[in-house]
Amino acid sequence: MPIKRLLIANRGEIAVRIIRAARELGIHTIQAHSTADVDSLAVKLADEAIAIGPPQAAKSYLNIPAIIDAAKKTQADAVHPGYGFLAENAEFADACAVAGLVFVGPSANAIRMMGDKVAAREAAMRAGVPTVPGSDGRVDDLETARRVIAETGFPIMIKAAAGGGGRGIRIAANPEEFDRLVPQAKAEALAAFGDGGLYLEKVIERARHIEVQILGDGHRAIHCFERECSLQRRRQKVWEEAPSISLPEAVRRKLCASAVALAEAVHYSGAGTLEYLYDDASGDFYFIEMNTRIQVEHPVTEFITGVDLVREMLKIAGGEKLRLKQSDIFMRGHAIEVRINAEDPAQNFMPAPGTVTELRVPGGNGVRFDTLLYQGYTIPPFYDSLLGKLIVWDEDRPAAIARLIRALHELQIGGVKTTRSLHLALAADPAVASAQFHTRWLEGWLESNATKLAAE
Amino acid sequence: MPIKRLLIANRGEIAVRIIRAARELGIHTIQAHSTADVDSLAVKLADEAIAIGPPQAAKSYLNIPAIIDAAKKTQADAVHPGYGFLAENAEFADACAVAGLVFVGPSANAIRMMGDKVAAREAAMRAGVPTVPGSDGRVDDLETARRVIAETGFPIMIKAAAGGGGRGIRIAANPEEFDRLVPQAKAEALAAFGDGGLYLEKVIERARHIEVQILGDGHRAIHCFERECSLQRRRQKVWEEAPSISLPEAVRRKLCASAVALAEAVHYSGAGTLEYLYDDASGDFYFIEMNTRIQVEHPVTEFITGVDLVREMLKIAGGEKLRLKQSDIFMRGHAIEVRINAEDPAQNFMPAPGTVTELRVPGGNGVRFDTLLYQGYTIPPFYDSLLGKLIVWDEDRPAAIARLIRALHELQIGGVKTTRSLHLALAADPAVASAQFHTRWLEGWLESNATKLAAE
Repeated sequence: MPIKRLLIANRGEIAVRIIRAARELGIHTIQAHSTADVDSLAVKLADEAIAIGPPQAAKSYLNIPAIIDAAKKTQADAVHPGYGFLAENAEFADACAVAGLVFVGPSANAIRMMGDKVAAREAAMRAGVPTVPGSDGRVDDLETARRVIAETGFPIMIKAAAGGGGRGIRIAANPEEFDRLVPQAKAEALAAFGDGGLYLEKVIERARHIEVQILGDGHRAIHCFERECSLQRRRQKVWEEAPSISLPEAVRRKLCASAVALAEAVHYSGAGTLEYLYDDASGDFYFIEMNTRIQVEHPVTEFITGVDLVREMLKIAGGEKLRLKQSDIFMRGHAIEVRINAEDPAQNFMPAPGTVTELRVPGGNGVRFDTLLYQGYTIPPFYDSLLGKLIVWDEDRPAAIARLIRALHELQIGGVKTTRSLHLALAADPAVASAQFHTRWLEGWLESNATKLAAE
Repeated sequence: MPIKRLLIANRGEIAVRIIRAARELGIHTIQAHSTADVDSLAVKLADEAIAIGPPQAAKSYLNIPAIIDAAKKTQADAVHPGYGFLAENAEFADACAVAGLVFVGPSANAIRMMGDKVAAREAAMRAGVPTVPGSDGRVDDLETARRVIAETGFPIMIKAAAGGGGRGIRIAANPEEFDRLVPQAKAEALAAFGDGGLYLEKVIERARHIEVQILGDGHRAIHCFERECSLQRRRQKVWEEAPSISLPEAVRRKLCASAVALAEAVHYSGAGTLEYLYDDASGDFYFIEMNTRIQVEHPVTEFITGVDLVREMLKIAGGEKLRLKQSDIFMRGHAIEVRINAEDPAQNFMPAPGTVTELRVPGGNGVRFDTLLYQGYTIPPFYDSLLGKLIVWDEDRPAAIARLIRALHELQIGGVKTTRSLHLALAADPAVASAQFHTRWLEGWLESNATKLAAE
């Protein structure tokens, strides 16, 4: 049954994004918000709003009973979790089901399986998708661990089975370091994810981060090509593109086909992303994990394919079969997204909330700025520092970079320090222009280019 | 030689549009402005600015010596005339040539030939392009006129040979009216265009306005498909789309091919538009005139084809051959543009300038807002009332209309009355939804729907 009344259980730019997609489908929108977000753009844009608790996420955006209660009070028939917060929380998906609410995302089972990195890896192997050499499952004793390392060698990555988003990862360069890091990793995984399970992966040096966007309806899946997100700082994506220019066409086809195979193998429903490491020296790619939600960087895919991913999520969650055939999906041009954060690049990216005294939004052909800002808005200090995503499209990558520079110059956010200067410096960098980077490249660049990042 | 320093001899949103395209090509931008426009967004965005005279257009934006002088003072090597003002003035193109400046547009000869509606009609006939039945040239005596009317019948349109943009057109329903209107039309044409020449055209009842975007380099031309602009008020376009949904594919092919044939026949260089009337009952189309400049509604074409038309103009003017082949041009989805004017729809569209106390720009997927506004801007009372163009793209026309409604609701311009409510009412109208309209349809609709157009 098509969704009629949607509760948005998230905040910031993704809440605004979801409101827009829902409204275009004629869905009534209800913004669930913390008391700190009462003045947010999402609250202003939604048809109605309901407070779900105080600023601390645990008491509002992570508070399952409060959200279910808000959905009931506002007679919502569906809940969109956005990204982060409860988006990949199977208990929340279960709680929605119990309350008779449609959870806009995959089944709780799919969330559970893909959320357990070891189970996801096993599913990938069963579907014939290459994975990073490492332990084929959780490593419960040092004996097994040493056997794995004998094959992969050092450095080795220690990852939390229940982890995600780059958190809880440790790299050991030698046996002594390994012995020292394992207990730490176990303790941290237990604290962060309630599950101390660990697994091991070979470190793929100078790898690129490439991910495939998929859409499924539980029976059939399609891909919307790949994104490259190799520019990362502390494992957080900073700059994302579609398509990847480092991928030969034959590898692209194999990679995207592997993502569809895995999505269909787990009967995936909704929008999802399969993340891979790609070694452009060998041409090998390795599945690392699946994100069972919409991702921050989804607009670059929307720009090159013309598919509205959030709309498709809402339609599928409303019971529609996937309308799109694989042959409907084709690429045009190149898109780049940069994250504009309230951080001071000259002060080691220290968070810098404040009040927006002036806002000039960049515009014109091929420019999209998905933001939570408006002139006069005071950014609450409780949440992540993402203020907006500047996404540009152009006929090819050099033109897209030129457009990005133009749009970054137009963007003015008065009263708040932002990461604009980082992106201007990156856009002017020859290594970025030639896409000669890997997932650790940006951290080295930041060390040697600190002075380029003037305060704004 | 590629353009290095561009003087923008225009104002408003098109000046902003040109600055953006130029900057993406690495061209230094110089905004020529009247003293009334010193606070304009174009002046803020350009690399530099130079005053060319007082507010009255005749003393600034139409002042050829002042503009040439400004170009020399700022060492510009090229001038972009935008639309309106001097954009289709062959003397200005000549003056640029004499001063050693590149005029971003076609040759003065092409402007002259296409600016003379009778000569344009003759060129079309020579190129095998169907024209509206009427006088094959200027009508200098009543004898000839009566012979033409004997073939076309009444009503008959009396048009100024040197006219354009819908100005100076009269329609006679019978011989008495004809005899009465001709002297008036002659006098007005002489006053407005310095040329009292008239010609006659059969009135195509319930016709649609369809126009073909072309790009040429003097040797070769391509088309970028058509736009439909049938929703007009007082012959001014109000709502524009691409593609036309009323055009069968076979007619589209013939129509677009005829536009390329005519553009190549006149060795057209730059961006141009061939305007046609289309009779969807018979499937016949008739060339009416060519606009030898960029048009207000060009962004709908940019959305469906991915071609940046202003960029192509700048490249061609800089001496490049047309890079694009016809086979490079393909359509995706549907785009709609609506003109947001500072006019009060509840008061017969009375101009309503003022100060923008609040500005919320619509955003998100498939939304572009080309505007001259910023929060705090005071709109000068001297110029046309266009504040911005809201352009939306989506996978098909119904989705684009839903997106348009969503974006119109997001748009907030505080302190100024605008035509937003007109577009919201049109977007909700069943005749608009089914595209059952023609060039006179909107005027009838406005008479019967005046009350829907609440003041804002």
